[in-house]
Amino acid sequence: MTLAGIYAEQKNNMKAIESRLEKALEAPHPILHEASMNLLRAGGKRIRPLLALISAQYGDPKRPEIIDSAATLELIHMASLVHDDVIDDSDLRRGKPTVKAQWDNRVAMYTGDFIFARAIELISGFDRPEAHRILSRVIRDLSLGEIDQIKELYNWKQNLRCYLLRIKRKTAILMALSCQLGALSSGCTLAVSRRLYYYGYFLGMSYQITDDILDFVGTEKQLGKPAGSDLRNGNVTLPTYYALQKNELHDRIVGILKSENPSEDDWKRVISLIKESGAIQASERLSDRYLQKAKNILDELPVKKATRSLMEIAEYVGKRRY
Amino acid sequence: MTLAGIYAEQKNNMKAIESRLEKALEAPHPILHEASMNLLRAGGKRIRPLLALISAQYGDPKRPEIIDSAATLELIHMASLVHDDVIDDSDLRRGKPTVKAQWDNRVAMYTGDFIFARAIELISGFDRPEAHRILSRVIRDLSLGEIDQIKELYNWKQNLRCYLLRIKRKTAILMALSCQLGALSSGCTLAVSRRLYYYGYFLGMSYQITDDILDFVGTEKQLGKPAGSDLRNGNVTLPTYYALQKNELHDRIVGILKSENPSEDDWKRVISLIKESGAIQASERLSDRYLQKAKNILDELPVKKATRSLMEIAEYVGKRRY
Repeated sequence: MTLAGIYAEQKNNMKAIESRLEKALEAPHPILHEASMNLLRAGGKRIRPLLALISAQYGDPKRPEIIDSAATLELIHMASLVHDDVIDDSDLRRGKPTVKAQWDNRVAMYTGDFIFARAIELISGFDRPEAHRILSRVIRDLSLGEIDQIKELYNWKQNLRCYLLRIKRKTAILMALSCQLGALSSGCTLAVSRRLYYYGYFLGMSYQITDDILDFVGTEKQLGKPAGSDLRNGNVTLPTYYALQKNELHDRIVGILKSENPSEDDWKRVISLIKESGAIQASERLSDRYLQKAKNILDELPVKKATRSLMEIAEYVGKRRY
Repeated sequence: MTLAGIYAEQKNNMKAIESRLEKALEAPHPILHEASMNLLRAGGKRIRPLLALISAQYGDPKRPEIIDSAATLELIHMASLVHDDVIDDSDLRRGKPTVKAQWDNRVAMYTGDFIFARAIELISGFDRPEAHRILSRVIRDLSLGEIDQIKELYNWKQNLRCYLLRIKRKTAILMALSCQLGALSSGCTLAVSRRLYYYGYFLGMSYQITDDILDFVGTEKQLGKPAGSDLRNGNVTLPTYYALQKNELHDRIVGILKSENPSEDDWKRVISLIKESGAIQASERLSDRYLQKAKNILDELPVKKATRSLMEIAEYVGKRRY
């Protein structure tokens, strides 16, 4: 089964989620409506809902709350992206102007708050106390991740632990909880839902590291924004961290980063230094280690179609180049 | 028992809440830390924690989760104020510059998100599923209230229902849930906690209407910001609504409001028109009706000290002039 095949199989559910999202984002206020609809139309891979749907196959995949859970997860993800763009001062996402660039920080603030409110509104209808606990946790972690990001911007001395905690909060926990909540919504056993949590967590760590690698090695066309955007915005990700560990490179890189108003040539130089330092390969190795851990968890799950689909998703995350 | 007496009796609990707040707002990032500490030091009446503490006297007031609940409610309130100031473009609150005025909208966004994350973090530790449901609801309502506020800014044609829904979401629900959560945390009966919910709800409606009246009748010194700030920021509150109902006034008021760059004299004129229209008295009557409903609920509660304290708080809300 290919990834396209997995999406095709979930076509009806994905459509149901899409219309749930559209309904949730109907807004009475024109700017809010336009901003939300732009975000919706910008699409994205909807990987979190997909993980929830496949995890729900370990129980009864027909339960109606599965679609609501999946939509809630995507809404929380969307809300966090809008606020992240304010923190990172990002003007482009997937080649389109961000809310904060198209309007301003104020509009981005309330658009994020609105999408978030809609997510919470969907949650309020859930009867399961675990669902509330799980979603409280993800909301907490996403916000703490946002704060970590602010705190560590332009901090060229941060350690690996700090980076890993940040991507855990920013990405991995939401993927872990997508699997766990999908599973619990289907009524599957706690043991299975816990394993799925860890699968999603390791997958999410690998996914974010790959994202951070692609930010260096992707082309502007693939990325929809200039290469090295993270670095330009002061965000120290794994490749930068590894490059800064090399004494002979550290001072040269930090020299450029600390200079006032680096030119485009300066940026290209520092990006090349990082790319040629072996930092990309080291990052790939760490990403692969997380991916292997995700795959190992699958051995502990029942042999069934859903398990093969999760393996396919892991393969995709390992190979993706955009 | 006077209001001061009630606070004095709760002195130790209030101190415990204050230090819980201080601990929750310790931030690793200098701006975030300073912004949060300024908010904490600006104080305020801590009316929500007080309501939670008194409501907890209907059960076992010694349970440790009561303090955490009360602190969570105050954190949610603080977070919503910071984002509200961005929506309303307010530069002053209680005579001090707001976060968005002292820094900018970006800092206000992430400071609000941070305080909110800390609240959710405290919630995550709660074992009671009702607590999660209650807090999901208040978060949803506060965010929806924020959106209502944006939607209705500069809408001079809005109806009374719309205003009442907005203040319900913005203020009354949080007060209602402060009472309910305080009660539930103390392990009191569901019947009592439900009555306390309604007491808090009616009290909150009256409280916000009084706030909206004070914005017109208070002096700049009392308010810590210019009189008529709501109106100047495009926020149609109850006195404006009532004044606009009078045909002979409607066109004169809207004429000034719709003019480009009204002068300070224009503002003073429109504020006088509203104050002299009988709108303040009409607003006071509606506030009193809500307050009476709050007091009526107290008749259905056990005759005990806590009930007398809640009566005293209602009296205070009815009489407060700052």
